[in-house]
Formats: sequence, structure tokens, C-alpha cells
Amino acid sequence: MKEKPLLLITMGDPAGVGPEVVLKAIFRGGIAEVCRPVVLGDRRTLEAAARELGLPLKVEEIWSPKEGNFTGEVLNLIPLTTLSTLPKGRPQREGGEAVYRYIVRAVELLMQGEADGLVTAPISKEALRMAGYLWNGHTELLAELSGTTEYAMMLAGPRLRVSLVTTHIPLSEVPRRLTAEKVLTTVRVTYRGLRELFGIKEPRIVVAALNPHGGEGGIFGAEEDEVVVPAVRRAKEEGMEVEGPLPADSLFYYAAKGRWDAVVALYHDQGLIPLKLLHFKEGVNVTLGLPFIRTSPDHGTAYDIAGKGIADPTSMICAVRMAAEMARRRGCRGPS
Amino acid sequence: MKEKPLLLITMGDPAGVGPEVVLKAIFRGGIAEVCRPVVLGDRRTLEAAARELGLPLKVEEIWSPKEGNFTGEVLNLIPLTTLSTLPKGRPQREGGEAVYRYIVRAVELLMQGEADGLVTAPISKEALRMAGYLWNGHTELLAELSGTTEYAMMLAGPRLRVSLVTTHIPLSEVPRRLTAEKVLTTVRVTYRGLRELFGIKEPRIVVAALNPHGGEGGIFGAEEDEVVVPAVRRAKEEGMEVEGPLPADSLFYYAAKGRWDAVVALYHDQGLIPLKLLHFKEGVNVTLGLPFIRTSPDHGTAYDIAGKGIADPTSMICAVRMAAEMARRRGCRGPS
Repeated sequence: MKEKPLLLITMGDPAGVGPEVVLKAIFRGGIAEVCRPVVLGDRRTLEAAARELGLPLKVEEIWSPKEGNFTGEVLNLIPLTTLSTLPKGRPQREGGEAVYRYIVRAVELLMQGEADGLVTAPISKEALRMAGYLWNGHTELLAELSGTTEYAMMLAGPRLRVSLVTTHIPLSEVPRRLTAEKVLTTVRVTYRGLRELFGIKEPRIVVAALNPHGGEGGIFGAEEDEVVVPAVRRAKEEGMEVEGPLPADSLFYYAAKGRWDAVVALYHDQGLIPLKLLHFKEGVNVTLGLPFIRTSPDHGTAYDIAGKGIADPTSMICAVRMAAEMARRRGCRGPS
Repeated sequence: MKEKPLLLITMGDPAGVGPEVVLKAIFRGGIAEVCRPVVLGDRRTLEAAARELGLPLKVEEIWSPKEGNFTGEVLNLIPLTTLSTLPKGRPQREGGEAVYRYIVRAVELLMQGEADGLVTAPISKEALRMAGYLWNGHTELLAELSGTTEYAMMLAGPRLRVSLVTTHIPLSEVPRRLTAEKVLTTVRVTYRGLRELFGIKEPRIVVAALNPHGGEGGIFGAEEDEVVVPAVRRAKEEGMEVEGPLPADSLFYYAAKGRWDAVVALYHDQGLIPLKLLHFKEGVNVTLGLPFIRTSPDHGTAYDIAGKGIADPTSMICAVRMAAEMARRRGCRGPS
């Protein structure tokens, strides 16, 4: 790769911490050393955030990522909205409409090979819903926009990587939504992601059990035998190194010690509790299976502290660095 | 307290690691410095375990704890079974029958004030079932034997304490088994336990949410509003310092930093995943609400390594030390 990877960064919900952590990452997080960042967002919102941070901001409006000025002094912005000054700290229809546009345009550019990867700042599902969009989050939306059917949400930190079979659904729906096919798909997508994005030649994966003590021989639940066992058997037949189901409570201790390269967790909190416990600030959300690289910070809009200048950009910086590293590993495919 | 607390230790499943970790804790774990241990178990099984460990064992058979010889040179044993030599590593009816007897006798002695606390080595639910006993574990059995209706299982380590509202049931049954009353009971029992057993004058407790992102305003589930919110409100009305529901994935990070004295988790793995991740070896299981002190190691029979001499007694040692500390705090109530 001759040049640093070109990364698109969506600004996220204008009423959340997105604009703030994007600016902090670009101008104080040193990410210009590892990539060429282009922001998709709203000029007025970013300028207001910069003022609040006491950050002198020079915006360069561009229409195509390759037009950017990457000397490190300006913010390369693809302006997609002209928002009114939205109050911080709560979901609003206008914000939901805006973030949808940023994401749609980002996917178009990526699918056209105009950039090497995408990093998304946090959005609000409630704001999306107010604007009439019923996706539960970035992951599902990006999959649909790119025509991807086999994908998975992974959370990655220095000691632990976790892929999720189910994500943003009520816990009560988890057992009935689990199928051997879904577990197998998540294992496959995780395996490929570990090879292609993380550069691990022979990935080792473990699948967590659903029930306490892994169901303890069927006494505490049957999903292990009915769902996980056949998926793991099939994955092994396909040549992957996979273990499981193993009881979730002891599994993560060994995973954090490096026994496997990734854990396939069956539901959101099963994976996120250990991930955030170990990597509260530096956890990165990665969408596996998409036709392009996509990462994001693993926190939300943080409405309670939006606009106060106190948001921690660490996870955003880690997300940008991880996307840049993945792009280098794959070889730049966008314009150079 | 004039003398060290007198603690009963049940030997646990004869085919598991119980006999081994009991002997290691007593003769190599230094627990005689903090308590007077009396074992309820089987002479032949313990002698065989001692031979395998190369441990010279002198058994003193006694019928009442106070008859014990606490010079530190003998194993004070209340012999309750005469077992055949059971193969290690799998549940057996005879083992299930034996552990039941140890536990029943221990509760009788404790209820009569003959000892200051109980530490139990691991048992097998399958072996219990083979012998016709359908309890899911020590906790429920001890509650029934002692006539206790309000109790909770707590796991405690140096940085994290977790009480469970539900324990050994399939995950699919968790949502429907949760009630505001059960959450409130667990909060109350935890509050009292923190005061009486852990010596915390003004305990701070947090209750975890059930669904991803705490239900995110009802989009991902309603149990937060229907079950946790009323329980927390009621607990506050009763004068307890309680927060919640908070999203489970970020909660444990702050709990481990000391923001609260205990977390009330709604299901087994929600509490055990973070607990074991932080305290894999030194976690202790405490039953709150019983009329006596009871702790145990937080691992199971570990059939896969039983009889090999490689079981780690750390959790057993921590369990004995914690029970001794609690007994000192409460003031000895047994014979001195």
C-alpha cells in the first residue's frame, strides 16, 4: 500500500457525543498518522462542537473522498445535511433522518471502491425510529444496504474478541431465535473475519453454552444439545478449529488468557459483560461479513454527557486505528 | 470471641475433587490458623485421597464438634458413611446418598448451635438425583433443611460480590420466573448479608437489567419497567441504598471499581461471567439468609480431574477463611 488507508467516518447522532469524539479523535487522537479520514456529516453541528471544545476548525467540503486535503490541518467533510441547531441529549426525528443519510452515502462510496473502510460514530435507535427507520442498529442497516445476508457483530479488545449470534432483542426471545444454522453462520463469519481482517492464519474459536453450567447434561436446558452441538460438529466438518458448547461463566477466563482467538456468544450481554469488564474504554465494534471494513466505538450516544466536552474518545480512536490496520492488512482497495 | 470459630466442612461428592481440596485446605492451606475445622464425611474415602496426595493422615473420629482435637495434627471427622471404593470421575447413587447425609447432619449441628459455620465441598446434582433427591444444589437444600424462605446465593471475591435472583434454571425460564417480589427479596437478603456477614454498615447495592442496553426504553424488553423498577422503588422506601436497573454490560466495570458493595444479578451467568472472569480461583459462594454462616468454593466436582491430585484448593481455602472471618464478625455462637 503506497498511501495510508482512506477511511470514512460518519458523524453519528447530532444530539449525542458523536461529533465530539470524531473531532477529538481526528485532531487530538493522532489518527492522521495511520489513515486519511473523511467525515460524512453536518457542517454546522461539527463547527459548534469544535467551538465548545476550543478547537480551531477548518472545514474542507468535498464530494468525493479522493478530493480530500490530507495535510492534517483541515477536516475533510462530505456535507450531507443542513441541520438546525438541535438540542443535545435526546433523540430527535431530524437527527434520525440525518444519520440515515450519512450511512447510506457511506455505503454507496464503499461499494464503489471510493474508500478503504468505514468507522461510524454512535446513533440512536430511538431517533432512527422517529424518522421512520426501524433497524435496531448500524449492523443490521449496513448489512441490508450492502446486500449482506451472512454477517455478525464482533466486539474486540486487546485480550478478548466476541462475536454475537443474537444482538438487540429481548432476552426472552433469545432461546427461540437460536438455531444451529445461525450459530454456524456466526462461526463461519467469525472464522473468515479472523483470517482476513485480523490476519490470524488458523483461528481457534469457542462457542458459549446458553444455560447455567452449560445445561449440566440437559437438567438446566436443552439448547446446548439441540443448537450448539450440531453447529460445532458441522463447523469442524468444514475444517474449522472450533470448541463448544462450554459453560459461559468459566469460558471467558480462559478466552482472556488467549486459549482461543474469538468467542461466539449466543446473546448480547453474554458477550458484552466480559468484553466491557476487560475493555471498557478500548473495546471496538466490528461488523464481520460485510463487503467492506467497518468498525465503531462500542459505546452509544451517551446523551447524558453530550455537549459537555467530557466524552472520552478512546474507543473511537481504537476503532479508527483498528479499521486502518485491517485495511493495511487487506491491501488498499480504494483510490490512492 | 475467646477461641477460633468452629467450622463444619462437608466432604462433598466422594467421586469429585471434594475430599482432595478439603485435605489440601486443612493440611496445606493454613486454615487451622483461623478456625477449628471438623469434617463430615467418609473415613475410607479421605484416607485414600490422603495416600494419593502423599499426606500422612491421622483421623480422629468424633460425634460432636466440640470433642475435636484441634492441635492441628489430626483430621477431626464425624463419620457418617462407610462407602465402598467408588470410582472417581462420575456421578453415582451411593455418592449422592452420602453427600445428602453429610449436609443433613451439618444443618442439625448448626441449628443446635454446635458450630459457628459451614463450608461445603462440591456435590453433583446428577448424583443427588440418582439417589432420589431433586434439589438443584446446596443452596436450595440448605434453605429447605433450615426452614428458610428468604435466601440468596452470593458469589464473592476481592473486587466483586454478586447475588442471584434466579440460579440453576434454563435461561428460557428466567424472564417468566422473575418477579418484583423475588428481586426485592434478593435485595433485602443481600443488604442484611452485607451488614451482618461482611460488616458493611451502609451497603450500596445495584440491580442489573435483564435486556440488552437495559431494554433501551422498552424497545428490547419490558422486564426492567415491570419487575426491576418497582422492586428498587420499594427497597428505597424501606431505607436501603439501591440503584438500578442498569445495563448489565457496563455495570460490572463500575462495580469492580467499587461503586457498589454488591450487584444483584437476575440470572446465573449474568453474575457468574464477570465474577469468574475477575475471580476464577478465589471466588467464594455464600448463602445469604440462612440462620447460620455457609460458604463454599465456587467450582463444581470437577470430575475430569478428580483423583489426579491436581485440584487447586484456593477457592476452598478462601471459602474457609471467609466463613471464619464472618464468624468472628458475628461473634462465636457455638461452643468455645
